[in-house]
Amino acid sequence: MIKVTLIGTGNVASHLNAVFTKSDEISEIEMISSRGDLSSKLERKINNNGESDIYIIAVADDVIASVSQHLKNTNKIIAHTSGSVAMDALPEGNRIGVFYPLQTFTKDREIDFQSVPLCIEANKREDLELLKKLASAVSTSVHEVNSEQRKSLHLAAVFVNNFTNHIYQIGNEICTKHELSFDILKPLIAETAHKINDLAPIDAQTGPAKREDHKTISKQLDQLKNENHKEIYKTLTASILNTYGKKL
Amino acid sequence: MIKVTLIGTGNVASHLNAVFTKSDEISEIEMISSRGDLSSKLERKINNNGESDIYIIAVADDVIASVSQHLKNTNKIIAHTSGSVAMDALPEGNRIGVFYPLQTFTKDREIDFQSVPLCIEANKREDLELLKKLASAVSTSVHEVNSEQRKSLHLAAVFVNNFTNHIYQIGNEICTKHELSFDILKPLIAETAHKINDLAPIDAQTGPAKREDHKTISKQLDQLKNENHKEIYKTLTASILNTYGKKL
Repeated sequence: MIKVTLIGTGNVASHLNAVFTKSDEISEIEMISSRGDLSSKLERKINNNGESDIYIIAVADDVIASVSQHLKNTNKIIAHTSGSVAMDALPEGNRIGVFYPLQTFTKDREIDFQSVPLCIEANKREDLELLKKLASAVSTSVHEVNSEQRKSLHLAAVFVNNFTNHIYQIGNEICTKHELSFDILKPLIAETAHKINDLAPIDAQTGPAKREDHKTISKQLDQLKNENHKEIYKTLTASILNTYGKKL
Repeated sequence: MIKVTLIGTGNVASHLNAVFTKSDEISEIEMISSRGDLSSKLERKINNNGESDIYIIAVADDVIASVSQHLKNTNKIIAHTSGSVAMDALPEGNRIGVFYPLQTFTKDREIDFQSVPLCIEANKREDLELLKKLASAVSTSVHEVNSEQRKSLHLAAVFVNNFTNHIYQIGNEICTKHELSFDILKPLIAETAHKINDLAPIDAQTGPAKREDHKTISKQLDQLKNENHKEIYKTLTASILNTYGKKL
């Protein structure tokens, strides 16, 4: 049985709190806001319930280091949940680690947590084992990932999540401009995402750039009046052509 | 009951053939390759089974016009399946139309055709009604879309399908380079695509560009060594910033 304190009240903290609460492997889960007098709150928590086995810091990247300073005196594991912050942002000399869920969390939106990849890291083997035990209690997808790899994963996530979503939005804008419902694109969006479960993206690629159809490319560039959209079209088309050894 | 002749043997033709074959509304479905002596093949078909009600031309964009010339003498509907070719590429003076399935079709990959949006267009009201009847026999998502709108839809499809898939591939490349399995990104990809069913893309947007986190943006640009990837990162980041009224 594992005792966990969660520091933070944002989306990640809330989702972790919900899923930890449901697990039989976790005997105690406490959620503490990082705002206000954190040291007093932690002291009170420890006086009442004793130390937790793991303190998970789920706060904005730029305050992880300062929040973690309040835990310097514990001899328990201190782990943050960030994709882009190195493990050694946590206080030196402590038992430190990372517990990074690679998923996009939205307020009030349920997620199948069992399939959320949890990327863990720790300084010591025994701490890694405990983080792994916690992760395995809530997900079937647990991965040992070092800080360098995690930074790359986070970068890849910016591409497949942030950039993809922005491209959806451009699709939405094009539809709206021509009095079409965005709904009409949704089955295509779903199938595009689904297809890569069976086919590597490089083999799933289709379209004018892939088949080097310069006539369609130039027509579509003419169609685009928004300069941002035009630039994105050009850049991605050039990159697809390049991938298959061709030039714009 | 509708009699259909499909001209073409590619992915779209094969998927339409499979789904038409299953429908009770379609009494006859014949599939004819556009290669070889098409006029003789069509003549033979008509001598044996009579005219079809609808001839669907599912061939590459640049041969639609020439293939359709072989049907000039029919008084039945001639429709093509292309997103980007205007209806009037079909022979003047004929009953012409469009039957455009807005989906990506892959060989040997089953698709839930009931949800595939079918965009139809015709010159005459009665022809539109017949195309609608055919479309409704195989899909619950039937839309009257004119040639101008269809061209825009096709452009939007290039964004949400071709460009999105290329971005998945970049995610794959980043993973491979850092000895990570691409599988680790798949739940995020699925959730990103799924989320827009409940949330408009503009509201689903997250990430460093959305929150104007220039520190992370500049770190991630440093991380990227591939010039294409760097260019794509810059272009999409600038476009996200711009969307929310910010600058790179």
